[in-house]
Amino acid sequence: MHPLILASASPQRAALLAGLGLTFSAIPSRIEEEMCTERDPAQRAVRLAREKAQEVGERHRGEWIIGCDTLVVAPDGSLLEKPLDEADARRMLVLQSGGTSIVHSGLAVLSPAGVMMDGLSSSSVTFKSLSADEIDWWLRTDLWRGRSGAFQIDGLGQLMIERIEGDFTSIVGFPVFLFGELARKVGLAIAL
Amino acid sequence: MHPLILASASPQRAALLAGLGLTFSAIPSRIEEEMCTERDPAQRAVRLAREKAQEVGERHRGEWIIGCDTLVVAPDGSLLEKPLDEADARRMLVLQSGGTSIVHSGLAVLSPAGVMMDGLSSSSVTFKSLSADEIDWWLRTDLWRGRSGAFQIDGLGQLMIERIEGDFTSIVGFPVFLFGELARKVGLAIAL
Repeated sequence: MHPLILASASPQRAALLAGLGLTFSAIPSRIEEEMCTERDPAQRAVRLAREKAQEVGERHRGEWIIGCDTLVVAPDGSLLEKPLDEADARRMLVLQSGGTSIVHSGLAVLSPAGVMMDGLSSSSVTFKSLSADEIDWWLRTDLWRGRSGAFQIDGLGQLMIERIEGDFTSIVGFPVFLFGELARKVGLAIAL
Repeated sequence: MHPLILASASPQRAALLAGLGLTFSAIPSRIEEEMCTERDPAQRAVRLAREKAQEVGERHRGEWIIGCDTLVVAPDGSLLEKPLDEADARRMLVLQSGGTSIVHSGLAVLSPAGVMMDGLSSSSVTFKSLSADEIDWWLRTDLWRGRSGAFQIDGLGQLMIERIEGDFTSIVGFPVFLFGELARKVGLAIAL
């Protein structure tokens, strides 16, 4: 089998892919996300996933490349990226408290022959109504750093999240079910 | 703080509880589940969670005890327990293929003073339509052994599950969000 590359530096994504029993290297892409002109969140996630796979594929020809991108849309429709600082994280939590955000995970698989397949997995995340104390506590954990929307669906962050609809792994950032579907279509041998 | 006991032998439950940063011992209960006369699946899960906490609490007085029980109800309304053998697992997969099962996770927290709080977290699990080859593959993995309903929501098993509604961790067997709510009510100090 040709080598497999995950075009991401995220340890959460790597853990989910490793959970499928696949061997791979993690090589983050060098694309500049700000250059992406697509503004619709769902389409933007897919576009960025494709661009990441494409960019890494240009440096590693003849290998399997997986690109992914995850975007969070707040209950008021605004796009939530990684918080810049604690004040920004607080703003994101207040915005989402007691409401439902949508998480769009775009996924792209590039085959060694250069065939690209992509897909989108969208899930919803419903937050409990957070008190000021609860928000303070979460900010103190520092677990919001580097997380789109300033929340975490696994570990401690789960205490803030009442329910989800969709694929849990797509909220973490690597949509496992969609990956299985794409892998089968493009001929990447995984178990199912 | 008083010691904390998880009244379960499940490594999946222990991993979720450990993910909250709590220190605890895992001590399985000795109750005989067949003796429980409650037949309604949701109420049965809560009853068994209480009985497990109660039984372990009798052997470990003055400690915090967490009891949990998870039951799967197939799309046709039948209760799915742990498969007896491969044929039984196959029957469960055929029953759930392309349909939605309900997972009821009952949780009980017993305080050192002997106060018991309980709750229920119910989630739905929607399976893809499984081909005969896919069912054969899953049975070969042996990952269905010891799993109620013969499926697994984490790892490889996720490839069969198209979407969920509710709390992912309640499907794994330890409903983290509900635990946070109960812990606060009963005065067990966790982060949120």
